Amino acid sequence: MSRDRAFLDAARALGYSFDGEIKRGGNYEPLVRVGDTIYVSGQVPRVGDVVVVTGRAGADVPLEQAQIAARICAMRALALLQRSLGSLDRIRALPKVNVYVQCANGFIQQSEVADAASELLLAVLGAAGAHARTSVGVFQLPKNAAVELDLVAVAHAD
Amino acid sequence: MSRDRAFLDAARALGYSFDGEIKRGGNYEPLVRVGDTIYVSGQVPRVGDVVVVTGRAGADVPLEQAQIAARICAMRALALLQRSLGSLDRIRALPKVNVYVQCANGFIQQSEVADAASELLLAVLGAAGAHARTSVGVFQLPKNAAVELDLVAVAHAD
Amino acid sequence: MSRDRAFLDAARALGYSFDGEIKRGGNYEPLVRVGDTIYVSGQVPRVGDVVVVTGRAGADVPLEQAQIAARICAMRALALLQRSLGSLDRIRALPKVNVYVQCANGFIQQSEVADAASELLLAVLGAAGAHARTSVGVFQLPKNAAVELDLVAVAHAD
Repeated sequence: MSRDRAFLDAARALGYSFDGEIKRGGNYEPLVRVGDTIYVSGQVPRVGDVVVVTGRAGADVPLEQAQIAARICAMRALALLQRSLGSLDRIRALPKVNVYVQCANGFIQQSEVADAASELLLAVLGAAGAHARTSVGVFQLPKNAAVELDLVAVAHAD
Repeated sequence: MSRDRAFLDAARALGYSFDGEIKRGGNYEPLVRVGDTIYVSGQVPRVGDVVVVTGRAGADVPLEQAQIAARICAMRALALLQRSLGSLDRIRALPKVNVYVQCANGFIQQSEVADAASELLLAVLGAAGAHARTSVGVFQLPKNAAVELDLVAVAHAD
Repeated sequence: MSRDRAFLDAARALGYSFDGEIKRGGNYEPLVRVGDTIYVSGQVPRVGDVVVVTGRAGADVPLEQAQIAARICAMRALALLQRSLGSLDRIRALPKVNVYVQCANGFIQQSEVADAASELLLAVLGAAGAHARTSVGVFQLPKNAAVELDLVAVAHAD
């Protein structure tokens, strides 16, 4: 199965479409490529105009909802890469993923939240999606998002 | 207008000089270059010996002050690049900027704080300043700084 | 003295062995190399199965303990690089280190915590260990770890 097809399947499983504009909340680029290295901006779980998972993991946001948020962030990053490259098949590697979880005092399952994103990236990209990762619990995120995710990708040489 | 001139204009508009030593608070390098990629260390809004904006955005630090802090951090990063490269004209790209905002419970305008830095970087560097960005709200920053910013730059090949 | 010998000396001084498996807490790679650039995942101060420094710097974790945590994180990152490359002598540069400190309200010595990691990296790698750095204070870390550290390394070309 092609990665672009796997992406569509993942969108369907998640119950959201990523066909529309991938909106951002500030004066920056969704991604910047230099050579073959692509830096993707921090993604919050926004679908269309709405951040669909807000609040603190471990308080108003249960683990399962935070994991959904992480998957949406990952899908947004993939959607941006797909549009920029033409196809997800153009991704050579995904060396680093950072996951920021807006959390309550005492919430220590940041890795479990991030795993939801990691597993989605691996499911869509296969071995090319293998990544190093850092996940931390932050105090606040833009728009009260429960999760934010950014990543570094490497494209196949043109 | 050259970028170095735009830098001076930005410093004047901000009301601070970045001529002196760009001091740091620990045992690390202000920046490290490998090949053409330059990693700039996290900058707090220190001018000379003094961190000029301290406290929590959304509590003791209003949005406008946090934006000033973000601009000072960005100017410090530019000053370090300028000294290292001889001129800001040697910057080919600025692919990634990270902005950390020390904030109060419920403060969710991290993007609005970071926009102040982004707009300054674009004003000074022009199209070469276009960047991907991640902004998050953290619990504490070194020296009680309101904002910290780091970035990745790419130099023109020698 | 070779770097691998310096690594062993540092382990001895710290009182921990890094011979065993460097365990991780999620579905990601310990490190990923693309070209000569190596991204090392966020390391918590885990030795074997146990995270040995947990809690908040500035509250239940005094500065000295947080510094020990930072050193363990750095040693884990070095151990992963050593195993991947065969020897620490294969490291050409260590351009960026990020240090996340789980801290109490009002704790602002993130740089002092991170310095413990920086000094260890310099002691083991010499001039090749010179790095840019960002240190921030976060609200929570995975497994209640007091410190998390990740880094970017560059290997000598094969």
